[in-house]
Amino acid sequence: MKILVSLSLLAMFNLNAQDLKKGEELYKQCIACHGVKGEGNPAQKAPKLAGQHDWYIEKQLNDMKVGKIRQNAAMVPFLNKLSPQDMKDLALYISKL
Amino acid sequence: MKILVSLSLLAMFNLNAQDLKKGEELYKQCIACHGVKGEGNPAQKAPKLAGQHDWYIEKQLNDMKVGKIRQNAAMVPFLNKLSPQDMKDLALYISKL
Repeated sequence: MKILVSLSLLAMFNLNAQDLKKGEELYKQCIACHGVKGEGNPAQKAPKLAGQHDWYIEKQLNDMKVGKIRQNAAMVPFLNKLSPQDMKDLALYISKL
Repeated sequence: MKILVSLSLLAMFNLNAQDLKKGEELYKQCIACHGVKGEGNPAQKAPKLAGQHDWYIEKQLNDMKVGKIRQNAAMVPFLNKLSPQDMKDLALYISKL
């Protein structure tokens, strides 16, 4: 029973953990506009992302995907491919740029 | 006539120029949430602003004031006091943080 509880807790933890390596992989599709170092690009209307708080990046990605309080048509094709976990991983990687 | 045209051009230029000093003054009302150095604060749900591109800051301030493609109730009391020129000045100051 104890082992089962421990395993369940471990699974829950891993489910919510942020995966930096996965974030780095996911970020490759952001580079064309936001830059390798997340520096942004006025020509693409892409803001600087480097060093932004991870909770903020995650919230904005989610808000733009839902499209109620924040609408960004250019981001939609990318957002549609991101799961909630992807957003967490991506946010962590961006916060470390 | 030449002088008149020159003066008019000068006035137009000044009207659109960004005033760093004015931006610094305006930023004082942002410090409580966004921090002296624009570092942001999770407890206030305030993102990092430091070093963001000025055109992006200006656009977001304007978008949040208009409230169509971006809604942020917490920012509205501040946005209502900002003119388009204030937003330009503030954006310049923030981009230098």
